[in-house]
Amino acid sequence: MEATYSSALLQNVVQELTRLPGIGRKSALRLALHLLRQPAEVGTALGESIIKLRNEVQYCKRCHTISDGEKCMICSNPKREQSIVCVVEDIRDLMAIENTSQYNGVYHVLGGIISPMEGIGPADLEIASLFEKVLEGTVTEIILALPSTVEGDTTNFYLYKTLKETPVTITTIARGIPVGDELDYTDEITLGRSILNRQVYQGMGK
Amino acid sequence: MEATYSSALLQNVVQELTRLPGIGRKSALRLALHLLRQPAEVGTALGESIIKLRNEVQYCKRCHTISDGEKCMICSNPKREQSIVCVVEDIRDLMAIENTSQYNGVYHVLGGIISPMEGIGPADLEIASLFEKVLEGTVTEIILALPSTVEGDTTNFYLYKTLKETPVTITTIARGIPVGDELDYTDEITLGRSILNRQVYQGMGK
Repeated sequence: MEATYSSALLQNVVQELTRLPGIGRKSALRLALHLLRQPAEVGTALGESIIKLRNEVQYCKRCHTISDGEKCMICSNPKREQSIVCVVEDIRDLMAIENTSQYNGVYHVLGGIISPMEGIGPADLEIASLFEKVLEGTVTEIILALPSTVEGDTTNFYLYKTLKETPVTITTIARGIPVGDELDYTDEITLGRSILNRQVYQGMGK
Repeated sequence: MEATYSSALLQNVVQELTRLPGIGRKSALRLALHLLRQPAEVGTALGESIIKLRNEVQYCKRCHTISDGEKCMICSNPKREQSIVCVVEDIRDLMAIENTSQYNGVYHVLGGIISPMEGIGPADLEIASLFEKVLEGTVTEIILALPSTVEGDTTNFYLYKTLKETPVTITTIARGIPVGDELDYTDEITLGRSILNRQVYQGMGK
């Protein structure tokens, strides 16, 4: 049943907010009433930032992530190592890696992974542009940081086949037991692989 | 630690969204990326509705709820019974009653309840304007629909004292066992009151 509002302005905001994932009518009303209790600048800044994002955002010509201009803030940062390229599925994975503060190279966002079930093939992804980037000769290492799923493995293998004749080094992020996890709670495949891919012990903190 | 973004536009939206209650950085990023996948109109409509709400909203001169003009959509609706006034703490309670579709009168939003602990007294609330409204002579019934707390009871009693010399009928919403609840899961105070305030049985569906 449609709720009655005393104000069409309020009703409008609630309706627009409920289009967002995970926000129902009660949460939307709570957010709208919260905005009304804040200084006017808070609502205006939020509204304008949303409009600007949607109208002005571009995709980086180099790594295909979300960007303010032709080149994103990571690709145009002179402190980043441009010769190391980390291949990720989407911008959320890029940001997850950025949040670790452990990586100083650049990225290449594929925009998805190969999935015959969903009809996504290599031509739908930014794979040709990755190949061209490698052919330029400035890239020395490609790090494959794709999900550890059948689709991720398929994409890894496809990229490996595409790039193996080039002089670039191809690595993948380490798989194993998460830090802080108990061995007997770890699934058998992860535990099995972590034994096969065991590493030389390098002391504490490594 | 501050996350690195490839786009200042995206970073800005995420920062503004995290000011909202219950939205952390991960949810904000998810919402921002969702907006980017939608047609441009969705983001623009959301942004504009938020800016409009904050800049154009007024409070109804009659019932003090959120309104688009001097009189809200409920007070200016000729189908609503203007002689019955339901007193609520805030607009959320007003909307909760509206959602039941069981009430056809109008409202009076106090803007809070009397709370000595928080330093809120009768003068901080819309009590004088309620008294003036009753003195006009068109109101026949005041329904007190305040929370069932010490503060709510205090406010109920204050309003009763203020209004008891006027010819208006003062009622309160019924307290008792919620529909569908088991007796042995109901707290003792509610169960005790529901026996004291028992009602004449009127058959099914009443």
